[in-house]
Amino acid sequence: MAVNPPALLPALPVPGFRVGTASCGVKSADLKGKRQDLTMIVADVPAHAAGVFTQNKFRAACVDLGEEAINQQGKNIRCIIGNAGNANAGVGDMERVWSQQLIDLAASAAGCGSEQVLSASTGVVGEAFPIDRIAAGMNEVVTSLDANHWQAAAHAIRTTDTFAKWASRKVGAYTITGISKGSGMIHPNMATMLSFVATDAPLSHEQLQPMLKRVANRSFNCISVDGDTSTNDTLYLLSSGIGLGHAPLEDTTEFEQALTELCIELAQLITRDGEGVSKFVTIKVSGSKTEEDARTVGRAIAVSPLVKTAFAGSDANWGRILVAIGNAGVVIDRRKVGLKANDVTMLEAGNLHPDYRDKDGMKVFEKSEFTLHVDLGLGDAEATIWTGDLTHEYIVINAEYRT
Amino acid sequence: MAVNPPALLPALPVPGFRVGTASCGVKSADLKGKRQDLTMIVADVPAHAAGVFTQNKFRAACVDLGEEAINQQGKNIRCIIGNAGNANAGVGDMERVWSQQLIDLAASAAGCGSEQVLSASTGVVGEAFPIDRIAAGMNEVVTSLDANHWQAAAHAIRTTDTFAKWASRKVGAYTITGISKGSGMIHPNMATMLSFVATDAPLSHEQLQPMLKRVANRSFNCISVDGDTSTNDTLYLLSSGIGLGHAPLEDTTEFEQALTELCIELAQLITRDGEGVSKFVTIKVSGSKTEEDARTVGRAIAVSPLVKTAFAGSDANWGRILVAIGNAGVVIDRRKVGLKANDVTMLEAGNLHPDYRDKDGMKVFEKSEFTLHVDLGLGDAEATIWTGDLTHEYIVINAEYRT
Repeated sequence: MAVNPPALLPALPVPGFRVGTASCGVKSADLKGKRQDLTMIVADVPAHAAGVFTQNKFRAACVDLGEEAINQQGKNIRCIIGNAGNANAGVGDMERVWSQQLIDLAASAAGCGSEQVLSASTGVVGEAFPIDRIAAGMNEVVTSLDANHWQAAAHAIRTTDTFAKWASRKVGAYTITGISKGSGMIHPNMATMLSFVATDAPLSHEQLQPMLKRVANRSFNCISVDGDTSTNDTLYLLSSGIGLGHAPLEDTTEFEQALTELCIELAQLITRDGEGVSKFVTIKVSGSKTEEDARTVGRAIAVSPLVKTAFAGSDANWGRILVAIGNAGVVIDRRKVGLKANDVTMLEAGNLHPDYRDKDGMKVFEKSEFTLHVDLGLGDAEATIWTGDLTHEYIVINAEYRT
Repeated sequence: MAVNPPALLPALPVPGFRVGTASCGVKSADLKGKRQDLTMIVADVPAHAAGVFTQNKFRAACVDLGEEAINQQGKNIRCIIGNAGNANAGVGDMERVWSQQLIDLAASAAGCGSEQVLSASTGVVGEAFPIDRIAAGMNEVVTSLDANHWQAAAHAIRTTDTFAKWASRKVGAYTITGISKGSGMIHPNMATMLSFVATDAPLSHEQLQPMLKRVANRSFNCISVDGDTSTNDTLYLLSSGIGLGHAPLEDTTEFEQALTELCIELAQLITRDGEGVSKFVTIKVSGSKTEEDARTVGRAIAVSPLVKTAFAGSDANWGRILVAIGNAGVVIDRRKVGLKANDVTMLEAGNLHPDYRDKDGMKVFEKSEFTLHVDLGLGDAEATIWTGDLTHEYIVINAEYRT
């Protein structure tokens, strides 16, 4: 029940990269041959790399290994291996063993060193990792490597995603292509989000790493299926440009802008595909002292089940939105807060607007997509968050009664 | 669909206090005469008082006024006036005006000064407060004042609560009686919780105030319908003992223990009556460095929709519990974490216990009440949290699939 999933433009090949998939039956052996669940991205030259990882204290070993590889080999990555169906998480001491085996298998298949491989796993938590079934698919995955297989890879990394997610951008002569998977679970902070992005723009590891953090903060960390605290959430960015002999970019502004747009597009696709989501809501928070404050307030609104059920019930329950803002833990002057739904002003200076009529708010909340605009009236910073609603029986209790 | 609500022993009268109720039609005029919705507690002598209040930045004016009264008149309170049906919150500048009017009306009816009155409101947020309808009920509420009307008051402060909540304790010759309302909304941190507790034990404001904070931290702040961040959450404690001429208690240990037990009992009743709750789960967290760390971890488990839907689906999904622990923001050594469900050991030292079988965990999770025990293995502190599950269609998506 994805919300208005857009028809995606074709994913563009990225010079220096080939992509392959295989069907291993990772989740269960009887799925072998029925769905693709292994993805390999090979850089034909040593790629510069960056990564952003989950902050969950029980993060999976593949995340530890990925971060170590980025730190030690950030200028010399040759391969990403990713699987769906089993997260290799919550299984104790074996996690690291299995992750290393996955990396070794991929290195051997791709013809590079194990230290040049990044891995990522998503799927069931707490079940033994079927390394043998994956090993049996390695030949298939390398055989299928092709510059034009990004969309197939976007399909193969899905778990409960109802559609595949990819996006491309051109920055001058250079290309950026990324694939993502999300969905999975309703709660923010718990859906495993994977994103692999590749570009031939010539940027160094030192340029890419801080940039990717900034970009993640304005994209994947701005959706209510928040990428930063599941066990396996991982965002990788590889650049082949320097390896391909291009002179390093000095002004990275345009590239960062395009990368941000691409990651926002992917993040929005994840939000549109949240389980049970029937509405896509943009929450703009302005007038805050810092961008981080604005993001915190927006997230507090986006994660509130009471607000989300009000969205689902088309109930313009601005009281719940105020409660959520008040829970954000950010300094608020309630006499300065303004609230609009699309172009309907609900609150001004903390008071209900005299012209506001409930039916006008309801009209906005009935739409499958709308924008809330919160103005804190305290400064010039702002941020935007994207979220969905909470639907079903959950609503019967919550959305139809204002306590 | 409350979980095993226990048959409550009669609420004991507390020397020095009388209680009255009235039907005002607060929520809507046509409810007048159909349900009680105004509660007054009168102290026949000046009472020492303490209060614990919501931390929400949009807290209602009645909360501001209550805290101011406790701070300025903590040794000289004569009346609590509470209403259900309208929270007098989220209505801007008028909130404080209406709250003061409610206080003035109660003072006039009870025959004391306005500065001696505490107020509390619960119900719909964002609608005009029907002060005229409440004014019309003031005569009824004072006419009904009686030392034995605590249970009637417990009924009158309900909003969506399916049963009235009260508890009493004896401490030597002294009595403690409290009433509570909660329920209302599913999410932790958003149900409005009101609790009024009275005792004739002779304790001063200076003794009561810090004690009540400690007690709240071990009771109302330990349930997933958490009292500390809605707009109106209020816990009042009044003591008539000094006004009645008893010599102040020097050793307050026994009293604090009894008050803690009473507040835990009330908090558990609120949890059992959470909307849509079908299970009552106790989460004990031990082996932490501080009690606050243990509480934070317990709360993180209790508020996780993924964990709560696993409870509802009788799915012993320990992976989700680990994810929630990892999200708590507390330092964890994942190689030291242990987890039991009742007497079934699931994890030891961060690894699945070799004797653990899924069916054993499932048997525990099928019960309507069970205990999770998390041992962090890092210290000697501990805390206990009580929570419910998340049921209905929400489960269809979440409880039946392990991503």
